[in-house]
Amino acid sequence: MTERPSTPLLDRVETPADMKAFTDTELVRLAKELRAETISAVSETGGHLGAGLGVVELTVALHAVFDTPRDKIIWDVGHQCYPHKILTGRRERIRTLRQKGGLSGFTKRAESPYDPFGAAHSSTSISAALGFAAARDLGGAPDHGIGDAIAVIGDGSMSAGMAFEAMNNAGHLKKRMIVILNDNDMSIAPPVGALSSYLNRLYAGEPYQELKSAAKGAVSLLPEPFKEGARRAKDLLKHTVVGGTLFEELGFSYIGPVDGHDLHQLLPVLRTVKARAKGPILIHAITKKGKGYAPAEGRRDRGHATAKFDVATGTQKKAPSNAPSYTKVFADALLKEAAQDDRIAAITAAMPDGTGLNLFAERYPSRCFDVGIAEQHAVTFAAGLAAGGLKPFCALYSTFLQRGYDQVVHDVAIQRLPVRFAIDRAGLVGADGPTHAGSFDIAFLANLPDMVVMAAADEAELVHMVATAAAIDDRPSAFRFPRGEGAGVDMPERGEPLEIGKGRIMAEGARVAILSFGARLSEVMKAREGLMARGISPTVADARFAKPLDRDLILQLVADHEALITIEEGAIGGFGSHVAQLLAEEGVFDRGFKYRSMVFPDTFIDQASPADMYASAAMNAEDIEARVLDVLGVEQISKAIRG
Amino acid sequence: MTERPSTPLLDRVETPADMKAFTDTELVRLAKELRAETISAVSETGGHLGAGLGVVELTVALHAVFDTPRDKIIWDVGHQCYPHKILTGRRERIRTLRQKGGLSGFTKRAESPYDPFGAAHSSTSISAALGFAAARDLGGAPDHGIGDAIAVIGDGSMSAGMAFEAMNNAGHLKKRMIVILNDNDMSIAPPVGALSSYLNRLYAGEPYQELKSAAKGAVSLLPEPFKEGARRAKDLLKHTVVGGTLFEELGFSYIGPVDGHDLHQLLPVLRTVKARAKGPILIHAITKKGKGYAPAEGRRDRGHATAKFDVATGTQKKAPSNAPSYTKVFADALLKEAAQDDRIAAITAAMPDGTGLNLFAERYPSRCFDVGIAEQHAVTFAAGLAAGGLKPFCALYSTFLQRGYDQVVHDVAIQRLPVRFAIDRAGLVGADGPTHAGSFDIAFLANLPDMVVMAAADEAELVHMVATAAAIDDRPSAFRFPRGEGAGVDMPERGEPLEIGKGRIMAEGARVAILSFGARLSEVMKAREGLMARGISPTVADARFAKPLDRDLILQLVADHEALITIEEGAIGGFGSHVAQLLAEEGVFDRGFKYRSMVFPDTFIDQASPADMYASAAMNAEDIEARVLDVLGVEQISKAIRG
Repeated sequence: MTERPSTPLLDRVETPADMKAFTDTELVRLAKELRAETISAVSETGGHLGAGLGVVELTVALHAVFDTPRDKIIWDVGHQCYPHKILTGRRERIRTLRQKGGLSGFTKRAESPYDPFGAAHSSTSISAALGFAAARDLGGAPDHGIGDAIAVIGDGSMSAGMAFEAMNNAGHLKKRMIVILNDNDMSIAPPVGALSSYLNRLYAGEPYQELKSAAKGAVSLLPEPFKEGARRAKDLLKHTVVGGTLFEELGFSYIGPVDGHDLHQLLPVLRTVKARAKGPILIHAITKKGKGYAPAEGRRDRGHATAKFDVATGTQKKAPSNAPSYTKVFADALLKEAAQDDRIAAITAAMPDGTGLNLFAERYPSRCFDVGIAEQHAVTFAAGLAAGGLKPFCALYSTFLQRGYDQVVHDVAIQRLPVRFAIDRAGLVGADGPTHAGSFDIAFLANLPDMVVMAAADEAELVHMVATAAAIDDRPSAFRFPRGEGAGVDMPERGEPLEIGKGRIMAEGARVAILSFGARLSEVMKAREGLMARGISPTVADARFAKPLDRDLILQLVADHEALITIEEGAIGGFGSHVAQLLAEEGVFDRGFKYRSMVFPDTFIDQASPADMYASAAMNAEDIEARVLDVLGVEQISKAIRG
Repeated sequence: MTERPSTPLLDRVETPADMKAFTDTELVRLAKELRAETISAVSETGGHLGAGLGVVELTVALHAVFDTPRDKIIWDVGHQCYPHKILTGRRERIRTLRQKGGLSGFTKRAESPYDPFGAAHSSTSISAALGFAAARDLGGAPDHGIGDAIAVIGDGSMSAGMAFEAMNNAGHLKKRMIVILNDNDMSIAPPVGALSSYLNRLYAGEPYQELKSAAKGAVSLLPEPFKEGARRAKDLLKHTVVGGTLFEELGFSYIGPVDGHDLHQLLPVLRTVKARAKGPILIHAITKKGKGYAPAEGRRDRGHATAKFDVATGTQKKAPSNAPSYTKVFADALLKEAAQDDRIAAITAAMPDGTGLNLFAERYPSRCFDVGIAEQHAVTFAAGLAAGGLKPFCALYSTFLQRGYDQVVHDVAIQRLPVRFAIDRAGLVGADGPTHAGSFDIAFLANLPDMVVMAAADEAELVHMVATAAAIDDRPSAFRFPRGEGAGVDMPERGEPLEIGKGRIMAEGARVAILSFGARLSEVMKAREGLMARGISPTVADARFAKPLDRDLILQLVADHEALITIEEGAIGGFGSHVAQLLAEEGVFDRGFKYRSMVFPDTFIDQASPADMYASAAMNAEDIEARVLDVLGVEQISKAIRG
């Protein structure tokens, strides 16, 4: 372990109240210590580093000026909340970040009153802050009351339509609220989109804004006398006007750009806003993702997410991997298909690296579309590409696909357009916790007419499913695959399209059949090993398709066994529910048949390693074994099973 | 039937190609005839009148100037597509609009090559048009090829975040595409939001825009020589610049405002744009919803949707109703709750009339929030209100709730915030067809941990469910109810909170139990009557809750009967799937038990009356009877049942 940094001022801060007596000069030193502590902590835990480093001064300034937890600070996405957690009573647990039983990597209401609203998907903060502001004005009185409502949102998050919807509504309601645009010219990847260019123009000409009219509201915002060196803040506040920038068109007063790393600007601006603000105000702060830590600043993603690392060098300490990640396998397979068919196009919503499409963008830049954080648009844009005769692969994480659900229903499924959904991070994902679990996509896709829904049992299967999706040109299709490394199986040279709606037998056996949909297959095979030691030899099959179901395979398994257990990495309503419906319709239950469906339990599972999360879900090999023994009525040696 | 209008020019138009030889003067006359024909047709069919009347001239101009179907006109929402349908080969079927076997009330790819992209939810058109533009530039070659991609979008639709996402991406990609902002200062209701105020300012000062610099692109857009009277168009085109309006900040060239009812402005503008446009262009057309038909123009919603009516007077021909609508019952019940508890707030996304919240807004304006067409924001804003100590009722149609699904998962369910979802238009809805069916909400809500999911069997139940939701203050809840009139049952004076997770027995019987979730209950009771005539007396129960399930009730029904049939107004994955999971876990199937789940078939059902749509779904009383006879093995007289 690296030596801990010296933090004499930070050591005196148990809660933000302890900062109130600090001078501005002390606050500057506190920020330095907070940055060092953040780097030190994340070097031990891994996690989202760059975003937090970019808002160290902002975090200090907000807690110094506002009265949390009565004033509500809502950190958009929550990636940048580590310094905030350190200042709000969670410093001693900060080195448990993202670990089982530890602090969440995001803000979380259950964790602290200083987290008034949890966030882990982007662009929700303005809506939530407006909700607090409206509740305040209607006399809402949650614990700690409600003072100011402050959303801190990145420029990348601002590109999502939801943020625009919230700005539009806030400008209309005219309630006092504060939006801090944390403009680091980054989302996770460098940002795309016209808004980003616009923001660049806004601060390229700094100070770009003339004093248009003192009568327009500037006077009411004039600050208390300023300290030496805060001339910039004074200028900004003097020039605050309504009308001019895009934000002002939406009804916000605009203050900016402010240097988000200069407390001598931030503090007077925030103090004045706190003292005088009336309606909605947007403070445009320019920050640098990864600020103050050279190894992060030097990376293309500015140290967005990192494994544990060595503080001195920035070298990440990753365990050597045995197999390629599913993401990489998907990306490579798609490249091979694209080499054969120039109609294949790829769409990502601000996640070129996370989805592996950065490779596609390098090779086929004109066919790769990074639409920004904009899942609704991503889906319908893909539908437009399909209607235009292309073969679009829309690559989204399972949870993010929830953002485009209506578009999947309307623009893709009802129109039966052949959009291919490549759904990464299906199932439980580990350190990112419940907000990033891909739990619901099987259910919400498999009940759409004409949709083909696949799940890859291993990385070789994923290659074939990419080829299958490429070949399905008359209707929409989706294939899901988990986070992390593959199972280490032999890889095919090239994908071969699978027969639609056909599964495969992995191992012949007797008495009980286990029908797996997706990557639990390896655990099922492990369970089979365990069971064989006890004289039970289950048949194991890989369904491959939740839709269309392999009716023949399922009914054959029923005919040949006394019990059938399905398993899938998802919540109820998906694969198992479709199998149950088939069995009911076929009268299988009428005659008596043992059927069980292993799905996620009815709870959001906190972060841990994926294996530990699947243990919580009772879906590991030992749980499967127990399930088989239970359904067959075999005595067990005190193994708790899920009821 | 009213006499048909005289339409000599329109009679010569079978497809838009027939308009190419018309002079501009003839096009003006054609527009008059098209308006008269639209009014005449809708007077016979009912439907969305106001939007179509607002775009008659625009429709004529677009088809006169562009080469459809090679050029792709994408009508946002599709409400305004009736004149377009009349001009594109569907005139002889226009009087079948929204009827069984007739034309869809929206654009629909399967209906015509002139409908390149179906739309029925708002704000998708720019995404789709950008998809076509990108496909074109990559050599995509669907039937008819791809020329220009043109989105026609209303100012109300522009407030949805998705439209902003698409503009942001289009401004970045810089592909040639055309957005026509059809600014009638209305969504369905008068619009709200800061964007709307902004648009008002834009054309209040008409002509507001100075010629900033000819060098910025104006020269390239200079028009061909103009006809007499088109000076306005010339001015507009000369003044087209980049930089200035909100749209220009997003990378669009802006032309406007244009009088959308003046073909002498529209035609030269469109011709010039067609000849010279390079990147994305936005044409801002000012129109009047309901234009040219006084009874529509005079209504608050400008004749948004109408029943059949008398053309001369505008009087609507509605069948007298026997019972209040579910919508009205919900609205009244919520008002009563709000009178008792000033923490109750209500949220609508641009549907104050459709959801009945107009009554709430009148009585409690400060507690009622119309956030515009912005479902994502609506949900998270409601979550913010709940976190702020209020009791928000978020009133959305089932299909529109799909727009906010991720926000339901993240901001409401994971945080366990007590937002109440009032889900109108659950199940099949009639004339609006498959896009407006509320098919998926049971499945996508009931698999969320901690969510309470209810469905009202009749309007009295709805009153109790409003009270129940008001009382549930420790977790999220949802209650769904159908479109249309209630069953005519006696109404309670006031709602009484139901016991959570408890259903009720409606009729005691033997052999088979039918467990209904939602408003199919009346059909189930009808089926029971029919079955009793054949000597079979089913037990009928109303589940009330899909989550939490009434375990005791269900297992008692199993114990007392040889068969259980569930029925719900939704797709697979919902209530029936949860019941099947319970029965499987309890080992009920092991011993042999007849279970069937009646859900929507695996297809999108075209518009018809709700009763006919439910007949297509095989979910009416006679279908339920047949199902019971089938499961009991009773001989039937050749009644087809769903497999």
